[in-house]
Amino acid sequence: MNCSIISVGTEILFGQIVNTNTVYLSKELNGLGINVYHHFTVGDNTKRLEETLLYAMSKSDLIITTGGLGPTQDDLTKETIAQVLGKKLEIHKPSQSRLYNFFECCNKTMHENNLKQVYLPKDSIVLTNDCGTAPGFILDVDGKIFISMPGPPNEMKCMFNGYVKDFLKGKSQHIIHSKVLRFFGIGESALETALIDLIDNQTNPTIATYAKIGEVSVRITAKAENIEKAEKMTNDVIAEIKNRLGQYIYNYADEELVEVVSKKLLEKEVSISFAESCTAGLIASKLAATPGISKCLDRSIITYSNDAKIEELGVKEATLQKYGAVSEETAREMVLGLRNKTKSDLCLSVTGIAGPGGGSKEKPVGLVYIGMVYDKKVICNKYNVFGDRSRVRNYTSMLALNMIRKVLE
Amino acid sequence: MNCSIISVGTEILFGQIVNTNTVYLSKELNGLGINVYHHFTVGDNTKRLEETLLYAMSKSDLIITTGGLGPTQDDLTKETIAQVLGKKLEIHKPSQSRLYNFFECCNKTMHENNLKQVYLPKDSIVLTNDCGTAPGFILDVDGKIFISMPGPPNEMKCMFNGYVKDFLKGKSQHIIHSKVLRFFGIGESALETALIDLIDNQTNPTIATYAKIGEVSVRITAKAENIEKAEKMTNDVIAEIKNRLGQYIYNYADEELVEVVSKKLLEKEVSISFAESCTAGLIASKLAATPGISKCLDRSIITYSNDAKIEELGVKEATLQKYGAVSEETAREMVLGLRNKTKSDLCLSVTGIAGPGGGSKEKPVGLVYIGMVYDKKVICNKYNVFGDRSRVRNYTSMLALNMIRKVLE
Repeated sequence: MNCSIISVGTEILFGQIVNTNTVYLSKELNGLGINVYHHFTVGDNTKRLEETLLYAMSKSDLIITTGGLGPTQDDLTKETIAQVLGKKLEIHKPSQSRLYNFFECCNKTMHENNLKQVYLPKDSIVLTNDCGTAPGFILDVDGKIFISMPGPPNEMKCMFNGYVKDFLKGKSQHIIHSKVLRFFGIGESALETALIDLIDNQTNPTIATYAKIGEVSVRITAKAENIEKAEKMTNDVIAEIKNRLGQYIYNYADEELVEVVSKKLLEKEVSISFAESCTAGLIASKLAATPGISKCLDRSIITYSNDAKIEELGVKEATLQKYGAVSEETAREMVLGLRNKTKSDLCLSVTGIAGPGGGSKEKPVGLVYIGMVYDKKVICNKYNVFGDRSRVRNYTSMLALNMIRKVLE
Repeated sequence: MNCSIISVGTEILFGQIVNTNTVYLSKELNGLGINVYHHFTVGDNTKRLEETLLYAMSKSDLIITTGGLGPTQDDLTKETIAQVLGKKLEIHKPSQSRLYNFFECCNKTMHENNLKQVYLPKDSIVLTNDCGTAPGFILDVDGKIFISMPGPPNEMKCMFNGYVKDFLKGKSQHIIHSKVLRFFGIGESALETALIDLIDNQTNPTIATYAKIGEVSVRITAKAENIEKAEKMTNDVIAEIKNRLGQYIYNYADEELVEVVSKKLLEKEVSISFAESCTAGLIASKLAATPGISKCLDRSIITYSNDAKIEELGVKEATLQKYGAVSEETAREMVLGLRNKTKSDLCLSVTGIAGPGGGSKEKPVGLVYIGMVYDKKVICNKYNVFGDRSRVRNYTSMLALNMIRKVLE
């Protein structure tokens, strides 16, 4: 099945909002084995929307629209689709009752224009909006399928997962099964090079790589008659990838590095403290995004200045003078000082040159030392991180999380 | 001038990347007084790209493409545009020399397919890529303008700002002048309500609002024959907005809150330290994104546990027991303890309930206390922040930055 996604909204054409709906739908549809061949965005304008619908119909079997289902005069997606397909709009009684209830429950005043939302094209399957007021709909006209969902991302996702996904699965003769592997310590292009023969020959399962700072993931998607076959196909590919790049894989369930680390800490009841210089709280604040992490996270001492390193962590002035703030010796004294004062099970220190200034030939921008004390062992690693200030700080926080992950394995 | 933006790349149709190029270009083009009426995305497929180009040409005077200018076989934007317009591709000597130099300087091996990048449509204005290797181009064919830029956002922005923006300005009879006001402490809908009459009646200058967590900005764009007139028009609107909402405006030059605070600290040479609990390093790490801030930022003590609050900041155990970790008394003792140990000019403490757990009727999720010592004064503010864990932590860091901004004014 070939699909076009049409986003309706002048605010997207103005660049006022990022079109995340299209990203979300594209991933989901590809995962269902549907080919997304076109994305369109048009403003709240009947003529241009009509033209776009006609063009999309000429190219695709499935046309999905988001946006323009609300109560105001600007919202005209439904009206335009009905007009293009020669369908009348009819009041949908269950949606009308839902709307009345909604306004009653919230003690809000319902304006007359709110009723506009519950007029839907004749013959359509109505999609309840469990996260808002505007219903969506599905229309099957001579084998072309139209699906209209609201624009707010939470409402769209709610409707897609609640109703549309199952509808589309029902249209497919196949089961689609996906697994996402997460990698750390290997760049996207190196990963692609290592898997290029698999990627080039992919048809089923398909293999797609995704990258963000420091992390790469690979999604393997198989299409088969039943789940057992699909799982077998996926597992065969995973085995081959693991064979080639196993040392870089840290997760098989699409979990972020910080999630994996938080889970391990909570599961093993490990108390943890940090002494951060160049990352200045990034590591602790990432970890603190996990609810309940206060059971493990004791403190982080951000010692940006030399004075702070001396006063807070007992780093020796002589060490700072002889080796500098960014050195193995300083990282080591920082983590030992931290351990001494906190007694946390796991202590970690970071010192580095984030740039753009402060680098030299001997100590270039991106030079980072990470010290760790755990289970009576002291480790100190040296890294050279590539990139600008923001990347150096972010990637360093990932390196630290990865070191923690490894000792907790 | 009416414009279509075409994004070329199968990775966008797969939902593998968010299309930020279109957002950026839409904002910029609207700022230049150009009407963006369509966004299209197509994959790396000659037939579909050709059809999309023809359709866009039938609707617009200006067609901008991003992506598909690279060295691989997948990259076919240039070839397809040339074919649609009946133009031959010719080698562009200056770009060829640039490419050879690039590979020589980096000690990289140049593969034969890299040369593909320097073949450009006959009669085009070549756009140097100052941030990468693939040049772009402008073609003016019978009054229709085609502009092709590379897909990587940094290269596209670099080319747009370096060459394309001036070219487009030259096509306009008008001067376009924009100013962006930044607000803190007011939501987007409240702001819109306060300005609704101005927004509804806008034609010239135009008024657009943008929102992200905790911050709202308003862009005012005027079109006039000369800069004096455009500035006068913009200033008149700004005066009216200031009249209505002046207390929420923190900046007239589109600068983020953290930028404004960093500049003030550096300018006034104020040393600063933090004691963070629920934000767990977010405030310090945001500030540390500014190069050179080590002149001001001394340290941040992230005291997540009660033990840490007692040991690091001298908070009294009795205070924690009587009033709780999230209380005005604790925030006050935290900041006084911090001041006592650091002697920093400005000391700030944060304690709050980020959620989802830990809330009660008396102390709900989102309750936050921020303490500050500056210029011999102690301030302690109480806030109730709305939202989930991530929003509470982020918004709290913004509240803290805003308190700093105010005392440094």
